[in-house]
Amino acid sequence: MDKITVSIITIGDELLIGQTIDTNSAWMAQQLNAMGIWVHRRAAIGDIREDILATLAAEAALSDVVLMTGGLGPTADDITKPTLCEYFHTRLVQDRDTLQRVLHMFESRGLPILQRNVDQALVPEAATVIQNHRGTAPGMWFEKDGKIYVSMPGVPHEMKGIMESFVLPRLETHFNTPAVVHHTLITSGMGESFVAERLVDFEAKLPPHIKLAYLPSYSLLKLRLTAQGKDKVSTATELSLYFTELKERLQDIYVTDQDVSIGEVLGQVLLKRKKTMGAAESCTGGLIGSWITAVSGSSAYYKGGAITYSNDMKMKMLGVKKETLAAHGAVSEATVKEMLTGALDLLEVDYAIAVSGIMGPTGGTDEKPVGTVWMAVGSREKMVTVKYQLRYDRERNTQMAAVYAMNELRKLILELEPEELN
Amino acid sequence: MDKITVSIITIGDELLIGQTIDTNSAWMAQQLNAMGIWVHRRAAIGDIREDILATLAAEAALSDVVLMTGGLGPTADDITKPTLCEYFHTRLVQDRDTLQRVLHMFESRGLPILQRNVDQALVPEAATVIQNHRGTAPGMWFEKDGKIYVSMPGVPHEMKGIMESFVLPRLETHFNTPAVVHHTLITSGMGESFVAERLVDFEAKLPPHIKLAYLPSYSLLKLRLTAQGKDKVSTATELSLYFTELKERLQDIYVTDQDVSIGEVLGQVLLKRKKTMGAAESCTGGLIGSWITAVSGSSAYYKGGAITYSNDMKMKMLGVKKETLAAHGAVSEATVKEMLTGALDLLEVDYAIAVSGIMGPTGGTDEKPVGTVWMAVGSREKMVTVKYQLRYDRERNTQMAAVYAMNELRKLILELEPEELN
Repeated sequence: MDKITVSIITIGDELLIGQTIDTNSAWMAQQLNAMGIWVHRRAAIGDIREDILATLAAEAALSDVVLMTGGLGPTADDITKPTLCEYFHTRLVQDRDTLQRVLHMFESRGLPILQRNVDQALVPEAATVIQNHRGTAPGMWFEKDGKIYVSMPGVPHEMKGIMESFVLPRLETHFNTPAVVHHTLITSGMGESFVAERLVDFEAKLPPHIKLAYLPSYSLLKLRLTAQGKDKVSTATELSLYFTELKERLQDIYVTDQDVSIGEVLGQVLLKRKKTMGAAESCTGGLIGSWITAVSGSSAYYKGGAITYSNDMKMKMLGVKKETLAAHGAVSEATVKEMLTGALDLLEVDYAIAVSGIMGPTGGTDEKPVGTVWMAVGSREKMVTVKYQLRYDRERNTQMAAVYAMNELRKLILELEPEELN
Repeated sequence: MDKITVSIITIGDELLIGQTIDTNSAWMAQQLNAMGIWVHRRAAIGDIREDILATLAAEAALSDVVLMTGGLGPTADDITKPTLCEYFHTRLVQDRDTLQRVLHMFESRGLPILQRNVDQALVPEAATVIQNHRGTAPGMWFEKDGKIYVSMPGVPHEMKGIMESFVLPRLETHFNTPAVVHHTLITSGMGESFVAERLVDFEAKLPPHIKLAYLPSYSLLKLRLTAQGKDKVSTATELSLYFTELKERLQDIYVTDQDVSIGEVLGQVLLKRKKTMGAAESCTGGLIGSWITAVSGSSAYYKGGAITYSNDMKMKMLGVKKETLAAHGAVSEATVKEMLTGALDLLEVDYAIAVSGIMGPTGGTDEKPVGTVWMAVGSREKMVTVKYQLRYDRERNTQMAAVYAMNELRKLILELEPEELN
């Protein structure tokens, strides 16, 4: 059958004036892609009746499914439900299940219930109501002229609950979905255009239903191969042949063949070797620790960290010498070496990371401009130090310093304890 | 004059399959709003010629300005430039300035230059070329039938450079922009619908050109008042009257009247009192430290932190007693109290935060289910402990624990060292 297409419409002024970043659409697209449904358009509009009506009609003309998020909150700026009634020629009625759920939710929290909370149980009569177990506003499923429309609250975890419990399974049974298979390879240490140059003939021989995409992300480059086909098994088999070739061609810059964060990659390397790590963070301020512990189960290999933002703490917690700081400064090879040794001792780990830098916008000097970062990674046996000169804003410099440092440790561990060959 | 309207079009499959979250649109909207230009639509489409052509035409019919990002990279999946030539009935020509800039960039980094890098200097003849000082792909400004179109690379810091150096100033001179003034108030400790209930009569008396929006974000609730008018001074004056009333009505739950992060709010409270802080983080894994140090100048009040993920580190770095851990567990009031005392001593600060919890998805028990978090905040004089039961996924639980803990400390400092009255 033909490609099943989805338009996502996000409703709400907060997405247009830039106070909220839309993370819902990315999550929805990932889930839909995994079952062979293609998000080909996304539109963001404000809480304006005419815009909602016009966009619903325009997207339904182009797509099989229209998924809407937002505009269902209890406050006065939400006009989505009355507008849906107008679009579907229906009226608002009270949904008993929703009302009971909302009443129960407020009772169990000991909160008084307001009229506007009761009104959350009003739904368009034409809708199939989807219970929201994580909040008050229910989801709504509509069918009209062969198209499917779903309206969901914009709060991410509420939307996710409604998608997982109802919308995704229902779409799967409604459509005879094609197979779409993605396979992602992450590389490090070579720019996008150089990798592309190496893959010119590889790309040229890809059949039309297999696509290669480049997705740069900080110091890492993601390469994603996507195949579409009739069934999952044969499509995956075909894709895996191309993917194996891709992996071989990029062996020297290969990081992982999973689409995971650098925290997960490093965690897996440690877990496989039953080794532990910790970090001494100055300029990254705890970001390395927070990325590593974002992975469930990280307590198996991450023991802790010392955030030594001040020089006093570098000396007290890590034993960095006063003379070293005086002679070389906090952002220096000598300092990060002593930070690393101190971290290995303090945290009693097999491997450690130490980072110190000037993230900007202030604090730079002629000798050490903004973006100068020294890092040391290693064990009691071997230590590697690297200096980077980053060129971006404070936030991005910090994130890049964290990614680079974690990747340096990953490379060193692989060198010291190579992967078994099977 | 009429409202100036913008459509933002993001081009690229990566935004549709969910591997990239669009942060550009929010930033662009913020900048445009500040100068009285209104983003009323955003559309995301793939690297498909027909979709680009149709969306350009559709958005230009609805908006005065069409801003495009993405689809300009050096790799093969980018077809934006040839499609722009088709739309504007023009052809690609080589731009000498861009070529020199690209050549220079590669030379200075000691990298060989590839044909696809040279091709970045090809631009549609009808375009005004905007030099990109942060990357290879230039920006392009077009005018056609009274509408403005701008195409920019999708890499955030490159797009930002092009917007700031050229697009924003040029739009400002091109249009006689109206005045738009936003004023944001952040509250804590009361749900959206209760705040709305308290503000029913306030909202009712707002004139049509002043709008109130509710923007919930974790434990905090942002209330934004927006006014549109002819000139900045009179609009701001009018808005400030309503804003003052809003602030008075919400005095008891007021956090700040700036649209800043909790890290900045806490930092300002400390800075004003010349006090220092640090944190003992278990379940937040460094997130509190990274949020505090995300603020430039935070070294004035943040000395450092101890990420004590393992029980060993809680004992070694913070002096938590073995008996306490054995009797009460790591996630307990007794443990966070000892962590706090240990952090005050170790970090030699005036105030500290200690957090320990079970973030999920695993690790919960009947007695302490996933989402249980104990936190202690305080000084040598006074300590406050709070227990939260969070209900979300690992990522959100962690972020909420960090926000709550930082806000608890903020409240305690205000109680111990109240704001001077002028």
